[in-house]
Amino acid sequence: MAESNEFKDRYALRGVSSQKEDVHKAIKNVDKGLFPKAFCKIVEDVYSRDEEDPWCCVMHADGAGTKSSLAYAYWKETGDLSVWDGISQDAIVMNTDDLLCVGITDDIYISSTIGRNKNLVGGEVIERLISGTEKFVAKMREFGVRLIPTGGETADVGDLVRTVIADTTVFAKIRRSHVIDNSRIRPGDVIVGLASDGKASYEDSYNGGMGSNGLTSARHDVFAKYLAERYPESFDPQMPRDLVYSGARKLTETEPETGLTYGQLVLSPTRTYAPVVKQVLERMRDRIHGMIHCTGGAQTKILHFIDGLRIVKDNMFDVPVLFRTIQKESGTPWKEMFKVFNMGHRMEFYVSESDAQDIISVSESFGIKAKVIGRVEKGGLNLPSLTISCPMGEFNY
Amino acid sequence: MAESNEFKDRYALRGVSSQKEDVHKAIKNVDKGLFPKAFCKIVEDVYSRDEEDPWCCVMHADGAGTKSSLAYAYWKETGDLSVWDGISQDAIVMNTDDLLCVGITDDIYISSTIGRNKNLVGGEVIERLISGTEKFVAKMREFGVRLIPTGGETADVGDLVRTVIADTTVFAKIRRSHVIDNSRIRPGDVIVGLASDGKASYEDSYNGGMGSNGLTSARHDVFAKYLAERYPESFDPQMPRDLVYSGARKLTETEPETGLTYGQLVLSPTRTYAPVVKQVLERMRDRIHGMIHCTGGAQTKILHFIDGLRIVKDNMFDVPVLFRTIQKESGTPWKEMFKVFNMGHRMEFYVSESDAQDIISVSESFGIKAKVIGRVEKGGLNLPSLTISCPMGEFNY
Repeated sequence: MAESNEFKDRYALRGVSSQKEDVHKAIKNVDKGLFPKAFCKIVEDVYSRDEEDPWCCVMHADGAGTKSSLAYAYWKETGDLSVWDGISQDAIVMNTDDLLCVGITDDIYISSTIGRNKNLVGGEVIERLISGTEKFVAKMREFGVRLIPTGGETADVGDLVRTVIADTTVFAKIRRSHVIDNSRIRPGDVIVGLASDGKASYEDSYNGGMGSNGLTSARHDVFAKYLAERYPESFDPQMPRDLVYSGARKLTETEPETGLTYGQLVLSPTRTYAPVVKQVLERMRDRIHGMIHCTGGAQTKILHFIDGLRIVKDNMFDVPVLFRTIQKESGTPWKEMFKVFNMGHRMEFYVSESDAQDIISVSESFGIKAKVIGRVEKGGLNLPSLTISCPMGEFNY
Repeated sequence: MAESNEFKDRYALRGVSSQKEDVHKAIKNVDKGLFPKAFCKIVEDVYSRDEEDPWCCVMHADGAGTKSSLAYAYWKETGDLSVWDGISQDAIVMNTDDLLCVGITDDIYISSTIGRNKNLVGGEVIERLISGTEKFVAKMREFGVRLIPTGGETADVGDLVRTVIADTTVFAKIRRSHVIDNSRIRPGDVIVGLASDGKASYEDSYNGGMGSNGLTSARHDVFAKYLAERYPESFDPQMPRDLVYSGARKLTETEPETGLTYGQLVLSPTRTYAPVVKQVLERMRDRIHGMIHCTGGAQTKILHFIDGLRIVKDNMFDVPVLFRTIQKESGTPWKEMFKVFNMGHRMEFYVSESDAQDIISVSESFGIKAKVIGRVEKGGLNLPSLTISCPMGEFNY
């Protein structure tokens, strides 16, 4: 317990929390929408309510988080503007891949909001963030996934933003009858996990598996103090000094297993599963009981969407080198690691055992490893529970 | 010219620009949408393209800007959490009132993105920002203006955000035949301006007339150095010291004309014109040639939406005390003031002279002053031009 508290304090001192307790408290009275167990809040379509098979709408917001702070340092160190393409992708995919979990794979309107410190982040970065969005949209279109860019806002807010912040909001419609709602997850279901690392057929290079969660920990735990001297604008000056860039790695140092630099590894753009999920849903939408995007809360995310079930994850992927590195540099307990980082798979399908192989085959056809990583059992109490069994131990949440 | 350059430098040193030249350059190749002269980018409705009277969509993003930095200082000084209600309203109205200008007054989906430094901005502020949104939505509903909250995102990003940033994104649909498109603005039109100050019937107190533009200038030019000592987290530490809170006023000092404190005056929540515009459009949508929300660029905003016309504004409202105060404290040339601040009216209708009185009557029925503030004339060249004539001088843009 002492160990666990130490790491809670570490998050608190860095001004983050993996569970966002006070935010959940702040929104506890907010209406949960038409499908309370669905991964995203779903609201009525006020423009076409009276049809026989009515539509509903999802509007959703997320961003690249503090990954943009690392991108800033990487860009300053290397001059490589392409890192901003990845930040655009991060901000978009953190939204689109949430939408996948309610069954929306296509025809998604996207809007970007960029806040910047104009004296540090010039027009060339903004141009790259905007063209990065366009590049990603074009790439997705090749795979039949249509995203519709609508513009957005770039604000000069140096009194608020140290470097640059990149957020995206999305809007999409879906027939109510097509919504995937985690309320159908049941004992006996298996969990198919889709790998977060490796190189998908629609990716240009090896992806370390990073999403856009846990970046405050990852950045400070992996990278070394020299970044604090060079880029004091890349972190909160009120953070205790010993927690700032407290790792051993340099941004441009090569990680031996992958041949990428540590900077590239942590900055790997958040993989989208849209091309895979689109094909899966075309084949078997009505047989998907639930889908979870392992973002904030990571491998424990499922616990927000079920009642009285026991989740067992006992066949997970080997932990990718990125997360092993973060654990090693930080000394974070493994139990905690699974709450902050996806640790190898970022997308989960909850289905009958007989449907698992079809999903695995589609995923593998895109070069993404997939397998049954666990199962759903009856729970003894009303509170849901999760057990992760892996070579590092058995962890109960 | 020297004077003008001095003020350009002043903006640059503070990391802002009223004209956003490099952002405009960055997006110059981005598709302009279905109605290139419309105030907001309008895109196709991919869900219902084949109808006889087809729909189109607008997704739009904006925020409270650095007004939240002032709200932070005000909250810390006074303990008054209600200031965050105003920030929520600012972030929403900066969007909704842009939508008004393309003819959308209703059935608007809204999503909020809040980025905060968790160690400085706790759950009680987040709760207030969220309940502030709900309060504003409820108030608008009383006036038949339906906004549909969809949730949003609160991110702990202390390494990026000094205090708190509040952005909103909106989505709405409109029949193509209902779109108000500034392409119909023509010589002979008059400009009806709707006042930004005073107390509308749907407002709780006197509104100083502030929108959410020009706040970096207003904050630093009006308020005194003591705020820099007390709240170093409220501004960019790289800003030259003499430009930081270089005014003479205290947040809690009373402004004699209004009886409000200077803090309240500058923090006046951005007024929405939605209830007024809804009634105006119900009466005469097809007779509105154009509408301009005087945001970034302020009184010169119109110049982005016309070709080859001369705009004359020679009967504007008396400059409200808020803007007189900013001018006096900063010494900003009047010509520049009109480019940064709305100076008395934030909404413009471009209509035939015979339609002006109807608009004025509707506005006055809500307690908002309105009058013909200028007119449209033939221009001599392709470039549009604007002349402002007022007691302070004649200014050409």
